[in-house]
This record gives sequence, C-alpha cells and structure tokens, in this order.
Amino acid sequence: MTTVFDYARSERIGMPEAVFCEGKDEAALSALVVELAARPDHPTLFTRMSADQHDSLPAGLPLDYDRRSRTAFLNGRLPARDGRVTVLTAGTADLPVAAEAARTLEFMGVAPRTIADVGVAGIWRLLDRVPDLQECDLLIVVAGMDAAIVSVVGGLVRVPIIAVPTSVGYGVAAGGQSALHSMLSSCAQGVVVTNFDNGFGAACAALRMIGVGATR
Amino acid sequence: MTTVFDYARSERIGMPEAVFCEGKDEAALSALVVELAARPDHPTLFTRMSADQHDSLPAGLPLDYDRRSRTAFLNGRLPARDGRVTVLTAGTADLPVAAEAARTLEFMGVAPRTIADVGVAGIWRLLDRVPDLQECDLLIVVAGMDAAIVSVVGGLVRVPIIAVPTSVGYGVAAGGQSALHSMLSSCAQGVVVTNFDNGFGAACAALRMIGVGATR
Amino acid sequence: MTTVFDYARSERIGMPEAVFCEGKDEAALSALVVELAARPDHPTLFTRMSADQHDSLPAGLPLDYDRRSRTAFLNGRLPARDGRVTVLTAGTADLPVAAEAARTLEFMGVAPRTIADVGVAGIWRLLDRVPDLQECDLLIVVAGMDAAIVSVVGGLVRVPIIAVPTSVGYGVAAGGQSALHSMLSSCAQGVVVTNFDNGFGAACAALRMIGVGATR
Amino acid sequence: MTTVFDYARSERIGMPEAVFCEGKDEAALSALVVELAARPDHPTLFTRMSADQHDSLPAGLPLDYDRRSRTAFLNGRLPARDGRVTVLTAGTADLPVAAEAARTLEFMGVAPRTIADVGVAGIWRLLDRVPDLQECDLLIVVAGMDAAIVSVVGGLVRVPIIAVPTSVGYGVAAGGQSALHSMLSSCAQGVVVTNFDNGFGAACAALRMIGVGATR
Amino acid sequence: MTTVFDYARSERIGMPEAVFCEGKDEAALSALVVELAARPDHPTLFTRMSADQHDSLPAGLPLDYDRRSRTAFLNGRLPARDGRVTVLTAGTADLPVAAEAARTLEFMGVAPRTIADVGVAGIWRLLDRVPDLQECDLLIVVAGMDAAIVSVVGGLVRVPIIAVPTSVGYGVAAGGQSALHSMLSSCAQGVVVTNFDNGFGAACAALRMIGVGATR
Amino acid sequence: MTTVFDYARSERIGMPEAVFCEGKDEAALSALVVELAARPDHPTLFTRMSADQHDSLPAGLPLDYDRRSRTAFLNGRLPARDGRVTVLTAGTADLPVAAEAARTLEFMGVAPRTIADVGVAGIWRLLDRVPDLQECDLLIVVAGMDAAIVSVVGGLVRVPIIAVPTSVGYGVAAGGQSALHSMLSSCAQGVVVTNFDNGFGAACAALRMIGVGATR
Amino acid sequence: MTTVFDYARSERIGMPEAVFCEGKDEAALSALVVELAARPDHPTLFTRMSADQHDSLPAGLPLDYDRRSRTAFLNGRLPARDGRVTVLTAGTADLPVAAEAARTLEFMGVAPRTIADVGVAGIWRLLDRVPDLQECDLLIVVAGMDAAIVSVVGGLVRVPIIAVPTSVGYGVAAGGQSALHSMLSSCAQGVVVTNFDNGFGAACAALRMIGVGATR
Amino acid sequence: MTTVFDYARSERIGMPEAVFCEGKDEAALSALVVELAARPDHPTLFTRMSADQHDSLPAGLPLDYDRRSRTAFLNGRLPARDGRVTVLTAGTADLPVAAEAARTLEFMGVAPRTIADVGVAGIWRLLDRVPDLQECDLLIVVAGMDAAIVSVVGGLVRVPIIAVPTSVGYGVAAGGQSALHSMLSSCAQGVVVTNFDNGFGAACAALRMIGVGATR
Repeated sequence: MTTVFDYARSERIGMPEAVFCEGKDEAALSALVVELAARPDHPTLFTRMSADQHDSLPAGLPLDYDRRSRTAFLNGRLPARDGRVTVLTAGTADLPVAAEAARTLEFMGVAPRTIADVGVAGIWRLLDRVPDLQECDLLIVVAGMDAAIVSVVGGLVRVPIIAVPTSVGYGVAAGGQSALHSMLSSCAQGVVVTNFDNGFGAACAALRMIGVGATR
Repeated sequence: MTTVFDYARSERIGMPEAVFCEGKDEAALSALVVELAARPDHPTLFTRMSADQHDSLPAGLPLDYDRRSRTAFLNGRLPARDGRVTVLTAGTADLPVAAEAARTLEFMGVAPRTIADVGVAGIWRLLDRVPDLQECDLLIVVAGMDAAIVSVVGGLVRVPIIAVPTSVGYGVAAGGQSALHSMLSSCAQGVVVTNFDNGFGAACAALRMIGVGATR
Repeated sequence: MTTVFDYARSERIGMPEAVFCEGKDEAALSALVVELAARPDHPTLFTRMSADQHDSLPAGLPLDYDRRSRTAFLNGRLPARDGRVTVLTAGTADLPVAAEAARTLEFMGVAPRTIADVGVAGIWRLLDRVPDLQECDLLIVVAGMDAAIVSVVGGLVRVPIIAVPTSVGYGVAAGGQSALHSMLSSCAQGVVVTNFDNGFGAACAALRMIGVGATR
Repeated sequence: MTTVFDYARSERIGMPEAVFCEGKDEAALSALVVELAARPDHPTLFTRMSADQHDSLPAGLPLDYDRRSRTAFLNGRLPARDGRVTVLTAGTADLPVAAEAARTLEFMGVAPRTIADVGVAGIWRLLDRVPDLQECDLLIVVAGMDAAIVSVVGGLVRVPIIAVPTSVGYGVAAGGQSALHSMLSSCAQGVVVTNFDNGFGAACAALRMIGVGATR
Repeated sequence: MTTVFDYARSERIGMPEAVFCEGKDEAALSALVVELAARPDHPTLFTRMSADQHDSLPAGLPLDYDRRSRTAFLNGRLPARDGRVTVLTAGTADLPVAAEAARTLEFMGVAPRTIADVGVAGIWRLLDRVPDLQECDLLIVVAGMDAAIVSVVGGLVRVPIIAVPTSVGYGVAAGGQSALHSMLSSCAQGVVVTNFDNGFGAACAALRMIGVGATR
Repeated sequence: MTTVFDYARSERIGMPEAVFCEGKDEAALSALVVELAARPDHPTLFTRMSADQHDSLPAGLPLDYDRRSRTAFLNGRLPARDGRVTVLTAGTADLPVAAEAARTLEFMGVAPRTIADVGVAGIWRLLDRVPDLQECDLLIVVAGMDAAIVSVVGGLVRVPIIAVPTSVGYGVAAGGQSALHSMLSSCAQGVVVTNFDNGFGAACAALRMIGVGATR
Repeated sequence: MTTVFDYARSERIGMPEAVFCEGKDEAALSALVVELAARPDHPTLFTRMSADQHDSLPAGLPLDYDRRSRTAFLNGRLPARDGRVTVLTAGTADLPVAAEAARTLEFMGVAPRTIADVGVAGIWRLLDRVPDLQECDLLIVVAGMDAAIVSVVGGLVRVPIIAVPTSVGYGVAAGGQSALHSMLSSCAQGVVVTNFDNGFGAACAALRMIGVGATR
Repeated sequence: MTTVFDYARSERIGMPEAVFCEGKDEAALSALVVELAARPDHPTLFTRMSADQHDSLPAGLPLDYDRRSRTAFLNGRLPARDGRVTVLTAGTADLPVAAEAARTLEFMGVAPRTIADVGVAGIWRLLDRVPDLQECDLLIVVAGMDAAIVSVVGGLVRVPIIAVPTSVGYGVAAGGQSALHSMLSSCAQGVVVTNFDNGFGAACAALRMIGVGATR
C-alpha cells in the first residue's frame, strides 16, 4: 500500500497543516504526532482531539492543547499576521465550535476576538455591540437552533460574514439541519455558510478572505 | 354512500364554518355554495378559493370575495367581538398568507391590524414598531425563508405569538421546511407554530386564545 | 471573551428565568447554580437536569428537584396566579414531557391538572373526561406516535390547545416526526404546536395565553 | 424485444386482471383495450384511467367507466361473492381513493358499503356509526392529513382494518407521508397499511382476507 | 394525576392485553408485573422486554420468558384457536422480529409455523416451499434490506400477506426505510404492511384476519 | 466568456460523444446539431431529446431519432464490437429507460437483446428465461417500485449486473428512491447501481466492462 | 396595512438595491418598476425576471435586460470599483446561475471574468487554466451534480472560493441537494457555500470580501 | 423452525461463501465457525467481524484474521486467478473499507493493489499515478465526503470503475449520503456504485466483471 503525504499543498494554498483526529486510533495518532514533532520548524494543528486522545499521547511533546476547542498546536504556531476577525456566538452551547474557529485563527497568526451569548431573543444585547461589530474586517457567526442572529447581523455590517451552523439543539434542531437551512436562506444579502460545527473551515475561509486585500 | 355534515361542531367549539376549496371540482363547489347560500343566517367562510373557482360560481350570490387572500364570505360575517390581533409579515411575498389570517379574523368579527415588510435584515424597521406590537393582545407572525423575525419579536413582547411558516423561498427554503424548523426551534420562549401557509389555522387558534380571558 | 447575561428579558416578556442543563458540563453547572443561589429573591428554573447532574451539585442548596420531569426550582417559585391549565397525555411514555410542562407551570405559579393515559384507541376513557376538559382555560396535549388524540380533543373543546409532540415511539414514529406532522396537519381547527418534547415551551406559551384576558 | 403477458398469475393468486393506466400513451392504451375486448369471457379492470384517456378510446367497447374513481370495467365483472366490506373515509377529499377501493371490490364481485365524512374532529358522527362498523367483516379506512380516524376505529372494532393513506393535504401533509406515518404508528393494535392512494391495493388485500374463512 | 387502565378494550376488540417494555424503568416494570400477577385468570403479554429487564424482576412469578423474541407470558396464555399462520423470514438477522410475531400468536392461542432463511437470492430454496406456503391461511413475511421476497411470495399464494419490514441492514437499508418502501411499493397485489420490527402488530393483524371467516 | 469543448476525452476513456438535451433551449440545440453535423466522421449521440426538441431541428440532417428512448444518432454510429449484453426490465413502464440503454449500446456498436415484463410477482416468467440470461456477458436490469427482480436475478447468474432504478411508480415509490435503495441493499452479491433512469450511464458502464477481457 | 421600504439599509451595508421578481404579479411588478424609474440617480437591480415578466413591462423604461441571467438594470449601474473576480462553471447547464452572479457583479461596478465548461471529468481543461485562476482575487464556482470541481480548485488556489450549488441534474442530483452537500463537505479547506442557484447571493458575498482589504 | 443453508448458490454464481458478522451473538458465531471449520476444503470469508467477536472465538481454528478490514479467512482462500484490480482511496479514514475490498479480493484469489491518500484537493498526487491507474483492469474507488475523486478518475481511465461511498465524515457528510449522491451523479460516464461502506460488495462486483472476458 502506498501513502502519499502532501506537504506542499498547505503552502501552495496558504492553509494550515492540520490533522483531523476524530475517529483516529490512539496508537496511530501517537505515532503521527511523534513523527511530526521531529519537524520543529513545521507547526501543525490538530482538530477534534478528544481529551482521551490527548491523554494517550506520550509526555514531553511540544504540544499546546485546549480542552474546550479540542485543538492542539504542535511546534508552536505560524507568524502573526494582520486581520481583525470577530467570532460571534448566539448561545453558550455554541462555544466549543466558536473556540475551534478562534484557536485555528490563533494558530495561523491572527488574533481573533470572541463575543458570546448575544442571541436575538434579547436583541438589545446585540445592538449594544454594533459599533464593535462594524470595526472588524470579518465576522464568523456561530449559531444553532434557528440561527436568527445571522440575518440580523447581516443587515448591520458590510464586512464578510461566514456563518457556521452548529448541531446544538433538540427536536427539529438536532443535528444542525435547521440552523444550516436558516443560514442558507438568510434574508441578509451575501452571507456564506460552512458545514455543521466546522469552526476550522470557517477560520480557513477567513484566512482566504483576509488575503484578498493583500494580493492586490 | 352516506355523507354526514357536522353543523353542530362549529358552534360547539366556537370555530367558523369553513370550506377548503383547493382541489375541489368547480361544479361540486358551485352546488355547495348554492346550497349554503340558502341558509342566510349562517355565514360561511371559503378558503383557498382560486380566482378561477370564483369566476365559475353563479352570479348574484351574497358573496364577498378577496383575490389576494383567496377567501370569500357567504351570507356576511359573524358579529364583532373584542380582541386586538396584529398580523406581522417579514416580506411582501408572505402577504397572501397574512391576508388569509386577517380575512379569517374579519369573518369571525375581530378587526386585525397588519404590519408588513419589517424583516430583521433591516432591524430598525422592526424596532420602530415595538410600541405598536406591545399594545396588542396577540401576534400572528407570518414568515418564510429563515423566519428570523420570530425570535426577535418573541423577545420583545409578552403576548401570545402564533408563528405561521410560509412556503415562500427558493433553494433549501422552498416548500417551507426551513421556516417551519426555524420557528419550532426559536430561541424565544413560548412561541407556537402552525402548518405551512396556514393563515386560516392561525386565526382559529387566535380565536381560541382570545376567549381565554372571557371564560374566567 | 465577553458573556452577557440578560436578566431583564425574562421580566420584560414575562417568561421564567430558566437554564437548559442538557449537555452542560457538571463543573460549569455547579458554578452557575451556586452563583444564582446567591440571589434568593430570584427563583430560577432548571430544565433537562439529569439525575447525574443533580447528584453532582453541592449539598445544601435551596433546590427542589423532580426526577421524572428532570426539573429543579432554585430559590422557590413565582407567586401564584390564576389560570386553569390541564395537561393531557395519550400514553404513560409521554409522562416525562407532560411533567416538564406541569412543573414549569407550577414554577410560574399556575397549578396545573394532569390527566394521563386516555389514548383514543380506547375512546370511552377520553369521552368520560369531556366535562373536565371543557372546564379548563387551556389544554396542553402531549402525545407521540400518531398523536390522534389532538384531533379528537380539538373537536370537543373551545379553549386553546397547545400540542407537544414527543419523540416516544419506534419505527417511523421514532424521533417524533410522525407526531409532529400529525399535529401540524390535525383536522381540528386552531391547534398550535411546539418542538419535540418541549414541555417547557408549551408551559411558556400557556403563560402568554393566560395573560390575554388580563391585558385587556 | 420480447414481452410476456402473465394471464395465469391472476387466476393462481385470485387477484383481478388489472391494467394501471397512469402514464400510458393514449394510442398504446387504445390498442390494449381493443385487444382485451376480444376476450369477452375475461373481465378486465382498468385503474387510474383519466377522463382524457377514456375519451380517447374507440366508441362501442363494452366498457363501464366511472369518473370519480378513474376506473373502468371491460367485459363486465367477476361473479358475486360473499363478504361485507365497508369503506370508511375521513374527509370528502379522500373520496376518489375510497371510490377506487369500492369499484375494485365491485369488479371482484363484492358489494361494498361506503361511509364518508366522519372525521374525528366531530367524534359523534363516528360514534353514531359504531353499530354499522361492528357488523361488517372488514374495514378499509381511507384518510389523509393526520389519519387520526384509524386509531379511533381500531379501538372500536375487532375486524381487519386496512388503512390507506391519501396524498390529500397541504404543508407537512402534502404527498401523504404524514398520513402514512400516522397509520404505521397507530396506537390501535393490528392495523395494516398500503401505499399512498392505493385503493386498488386495499381492495386486493381485502379479497385475500375474505378468503381466509373460506379456505378452512 | 389520574391514570385510567382500559381492561375492557382488549376484550372488546379481541386483542391481547400487552405491555410494551422498551424504555420502561425497571422499578416501575416490576411493580406492574407484580400487580398484574395478582390476576391469575388474566394472561398478559410483555413485549420488548430486554434480558436485563427480565433479570431485574422478582423471582417466583408465573412468567414464561423468551430471550430471542424478548417476550414474556404472565399467567399463561389464551385458549387455543384455529388458524394456520406461517411466519416467513428472508434472513437469519430477521429472526428476532419473526419470533416476536410467532410468540404473540402463541400467546393468543394460535400455533404458528416459522420458515427461515429463504431469501430470494437463492430462489430455489423458496420455490421448494411453495406447497407449504399454499397450505396456510395467512402469511407473515418478515424482511429487511430490499425485502424482495415479498413480491415473489405475493405472486405465489392467494392468502393474506402481512409484510413486516425490519431495521436490519446497513448503509441505505439501515433503520428499515428501504424495506418499508419496498414492501409498500411491492409489485404483488394486495400486500399490507406494518411499522418497522413490529412482529407484535403483525400477529394482532393476523388475529383480526383469522376471525373474518368466523364472524360470518 | 470562454468555453472549452473536450473532443479528446471521449477517445481517451473510450466513451461515446454524447449530448444531454433535457433543458436545452431549442435554438441552442439546433445550432449545436448543425455544428456537429459538419464533422461527418464523428458520430454523436443525443440523449433525452424530446419529440418537441426533435421536431424543432432543421430538416435534412443525418439524424436517426427514436421516440421511445428519446435518443438520436448523428452521423451514424460507431463500428460494431463484440459483447453479448442483455437489457432486462421488470415492467412495461420501465421500457423508455431500457430503450435508452439499448440505443446507447447500439450507437457504440454493441447489439443488445431486450427482455421485458418479467416481474417477479409472476416468477415463472423469469425462471423460463434463466438459460437466456446465463448465456450473455453482462446484464443491465432496469426496474422501478421495489426492484425485487435484481436480487432474484443476482442469485441466478454470474455475469456483471448493472441495476438501473427508474422513477416509475407512485406513493413511496415515486421519484425512484424506493428502487434505488432496494438495489443498493440487494441481498444478491456484487450488484452495482447507477443514478435514476440512467440508461445511458448503464450502457457506458457496460462498455467499460466489456473491455475488461480485451485489455488483458 | 403598513409597508416600510428600507432605502437606507442597502447603503448601510454596501449591498445593491435589488428586487427579486420570481412569483411577482406582472401588474405589481410594472407598478414597482415605474415607481423606481422615477429615481434616476438610484440604480436598481432586478433578479429572476422572466422573459414574460420583462415583456409585460411598459416600453421606454431605462432598463437593460439580459435573458440568460434573467436580470435587469434600471437607471444604469453603480460606479466601477476594483476587484478581479472570476466566475467558473463546470457545465453549460450552470451558465444561467453563473450569469446571474456575473451580471450582479457588473451592476455593482466589478468587471468579472467567466470561464465555462471546465468539468473535472476532463481534468486537463481545468489544469490549463490554473495560471488564470491564480491571478484573480476571488473565485465564484458554480456547479451542479457532484460539484467535484470545487475540491480540485480549492486545492489549487489561495483566494476565497464561494461555491454555488445549482439545481441542475437529474435523479439524486435533481434539486441541488447533491451539489450542496458535496460543497459543504468539500475536502478542500476554507470553501464557503450559498443557497441553490444563488448567483446573486454569491456576488453580494464577493462584494463583502473585496472590501476586506480596502477597510484596513 | 426450519433453516435452509444454500451451499450451492455460491458456486452457481461464482461468489465467495461469506458470513456477515455484524450484530451476530458471540455464542452463535462461535458455533457457526466451528461447524464450518469442519469442512476444510471449503474456504469461508467472514466480514464485519469485530476484534471482540474475534477474541471470543475458540483458539486453534484455521483462521486468518485482519483487524483493520475486520475480515477473516477460514480454511484458507480460493485458488489464484487473473485480474489486475486497483483499490484507490481518497483519505486515510476510508482505509478500513478499502481493506475490506482488498481482503475480499485476496480471499477470492485476486491480488489487488491499494493506492491511498490521493485526494483531489492535492490533484498532483493523483495525476502522478495516472500511468499506474491506466495499467489495471478495474478500479475500485473508495471515498467519503464529496467523493470528488470519482469524477476525476472517471475521466482519466477507460476500465470499469466501481465507486464505494463511505460513511466517513461529519455534518452533512455524516452517514455517507453525501458521497453516495455525488457518486451516483458523477459527471464521469459509466461509473457504478455500491451501498455505503460495502467493500465486500465491490469486490464481488469486480469478480463478476473480471469474468466478462473469460466467458467469451
């Protein structure tokens, strides 16, 4: 069997080198982490790394693990770069996904700001933050349930809005279809959407967008 | 074959006598209208009556037809009763469903107020109406797409909110599932929901609720 | 990260202050309960609190926990108010959801009555209770499977009917879609529906409706 | 290309020889009817024959066409046989499907009785007919929307109940999934179900069941 | 809270008194079994009783438990009655559902025959059994996956066929939708269908059908 | 705007040059046909060409149109090649899809055989053809509804079986999901499946398979 | 009834003033166009305007209509702005959606480039265009069916990629769910998605992104 | 109860004798393995045998177990036969399914080649392997998520392509529907598809196809 690792691609498209850990065998994951740790000048991001997976790794590795976001940085992170990104969440239950987005941005050298618990059922909390929202370059909005916050925010700011549906919720909202469909059919213009719970993907998309100005 | 008409039920539960016309054969509908017209003291409501169906009816009947809502009143309407009901719609495309709710209320003797085109992507339009919303006894909110308005309004008023999803929209919103699921999973507390496009059902539910105070 | 708690909203819209516990980390939940216990004049309701979550809380808190409904009252409950609400269930399996509705009402100061196990496959049991049903101000009907009871009851009483689908059942009924769709397409006029298993939401809706008479 | 017609099967399993016309080209249908008309001792049933298809057939054929059920008998019908079958419908919109079941039974020599418009939202209409229902050998219950009648009837009689969901309805009930799922998850014991709108199939099933006693 | 037990219904419609155990609390189930054991002349059937639930019951009860079908008879069974019922299964994985049907029939006094593992991919095995199949009064066919056996059998026999989809299978067949839809759209005439895995329901339906001849 | 036509690909992978006509504007289609007709040594296949589209083309083109399969050959067909392919259909309603497969094969130089109307509800018709089926190199089985024929045939022959679900059918079978899922979960080993109604794709797959022997 | 038009919002968030015409009554649309034509300094974009709707408008209006994209510009377009946007489509059937995106960009003052018919089944056509793709600031990729092009392109360029699923296709691809799900689960990092056929929304999102660099 | 084992079928259609272990009781599985071990000249393949199931078997059996593919060979394997089959996977997470296909082929006497981790987001890795791919007789492509690799490969080679969707992935890709639908709607011609995760079925199909040349 032949396996081919694509070290070049991450650099070619400017995306982080990342390993998705969910479903990975602990032994295989340990072997991979040890192998990658031997390349100290190549920071690697691990996503969806459970606490159990983390606990099974050998001690002494140059690993920065965060339990809420289930992410780890190996061999540090990428150099700092410009870009004012705000991660906004509607409810506390959405925080793990928001944290995955924020940690991915941090890994890539962007220092994000997170604003939490500003659901539209208490609209004043959100309206109080409008000046903050209008000052950033890009918004990542993380929401489950009816995801109503996306349309409200979409009508308040002119920067790019990346909407991340979460699988938080029960009944018809369970699994995230409800939030996904709300976001795709948002009445606010120009909102774009990622897969469920895809905080990592939203951060990658943000990285692509931040570069738009830079390449001109 | 034996057919049984239930004249008593409408009176027993306080609901209007109503005929759902969609899918009805024009000849059969004409016969039914003529038969019911012979009971001048029994107002009847017709819903989902298309313009073509209406044009196929005999002339000279005591019929008040409204094209937008596709409703008709036969033999007048019920006596006026108290109750300040507001019908709120997010977009102009939802107006036919809102009109069905409003006309059904009018038939039942309640004079509703309709506020249209206050979608949350332009949140100020909605916020300007908060005093109006807080003055009514009951809100019917008609919305398609992401139905985000329901959660915003649900956090602003304490009266009952009946949410009616519409099948307006395209892509994932087509058919109304997206709006239905948003409404059912609204982050605002105590919102209740009807079937798609069911302006008639929302008005009937309103009638049940208006009576709550009266029976005590 | 900035978190904003909206103490004012619950009072503005007349809804209970409530914490949804499902999926919450035990440590975080304990911290929150202790924080809220320090506000003795602010009763708080906890919903979807599992027995395990309850057992993990510190002892000695002013907490009234009910295992079946998975609800807890912290710092007592709200003052008594008028309103004759009946919670009706079709099968014993629906009792936990019915109990969540009943306990939420109790927390809010309304003393509900619960009638259980009156499924329509034994229609006489239900018909025997018609006088009881007609005496209340509002009905919450909790049902899974085919939810047929909703249409029968809807034709017997004139008060508001809030239908709560449960995820009880197997085969096509598993998850509650079958009951949800039956309720939304009920042939009884003016029935309104909540999300699956949403006893809390039904009680909140009842609270909105009970107020209709009062505000006039 | 080789086509094989299975004249023997219908006799082997005791089912009617039947032609499903929906989607058939008018010319091909005419040719088939003419061919089958030449076998005067073989009655054939045609189902889902639209009025337009019927009008396109040559005149003078020994054909008994019924517009409501969209069925036609060619070369008469089968000899009379015993069996008291009742076809019950919840709403007038279900009548075409009920009529397909009734006409198929007539073709097979069974004289069915049809009881219409006894929906459970007016439960007294149904209860008045209990003696009639308990006198038959087999019930075919045709219903759309929430199909609640099935569970009520299932608790009242001990004879076989064949439930036929119809695609009548709007919103979540459109297409019949709602009625199908209600019937499959009926709380009444021993109800069996056919495909949507399958009056013909229900009649065939009835024929199989009527024979149970006869074969012993 | 008022609970109403309907002892009369089972007798009225000729169905067994049965308790569905899945999801029931062990303490509550024990209490119910002890209560019912005190009525020695009333045999009761328990379905979906897991081995763990069974092990938690007090010793010494007049209980006949079968592990494969997860059924138990309390206080014996009903008197023997006529009726030659065959339960046919396509694969060994379907045996638990077939056994639930067979055990329910045994409880009701009917001695069923079970034929297993005659899937149509080896058609000769099934064809060898045609004489056996044609000798019974009624067939219950239990199948998962593509349920193709239903159509083949439906073309071979003239007795009633009750098709029970099972949730056995993987990929698109997981959960049973694939088998359910195949059975509902079977090209064999007059096949009727129950909910997924509903061996109990199929046996109840068989009981209704066996009675057809008897009532005449 | 830049459009790139890939003449080389068809030759590289051995597939026919084909144009899918459904949804194409008549004017644009005419222009394309005229353009391609100017390359007399390049036969082109047109699929899903409606009779109306065909009638709108200029006269005098070297076009061989077949109404049932909605296919046309422009500039003749490809040279004859070996390969005994049989196209098998369960019902007459599946013939248009079977014909699309057969015509595509003819275009590619393979002379297929078609066997129709051998549905498994009359299993003897199919069994009579087993010798014929075992003599071919490859089977394309076209079926709608429950697609039960696939599993039966899959257990009778050792050649490749390409199953094509059709959207023929009503109720749960409408649209073809039922047949697709049956085929994917067939209990016969080694059956492979195409998209709904994709007679063209099945023929292309057959072409790939026929070549397997040749390349060794 | 009160209608509120939000002229300010478009300017506040930098989005075009646009009217969605699908489903609009011809008379109402004419009235709206005439009203807006009276504001010559406010260019307005019309989307989903059918040829029939366009033909029904009064003559002589300052309207620039494009049939393929079903868009019209009223009172000219917005001033030119920087931004190199490329619209890429996989198949010719996706061109109407691609054209809606391109025309919306043109209306907003951005001159897009369109590259069509570079589906991945002929990968060389796409690879030949890599230099072109790498030179732009932002890519809009429009695709139906399996939308495989998105993942290939996502691995080749570092600019933002907005993926627009189209409802083009048949069988499982019909309606666009297949393309939508492929895009959301693309193995390329940082791809974002819009609703089906939403060329307009993709252009609005592009406008938000082009501004990212400018605001710093 | 009568069980019928079909030893003859496997030989008749040339498929391996195989036992699907998922869901099988450990005791029953042990009994079956011991029984089959007594037929040393009949190699048997076990699929979906978990490590726990394997550990529960008696020691000393002639069993070759592979943990990744969850397969076991009992009594050796079938004689070697010709056929160059390549199993191609897009991501490492798809390896278990690819391994099931490869091991099934090995059991049948075909020596497959596996190429892993050549996802299209790094298209160069795949293009480097084109000569390898063009040299085989048949390709099995195993992919989850968007399955984009299928269309790219389908445009590069002329041999049969069997696409196996995997249930690997999260969000909309979870469960495999996304990959299944992408494969069925692939823009490459003549791709055929199996059920989710069905490596065994793909190998069986390959066996059917390899024989095509041999039978001529």
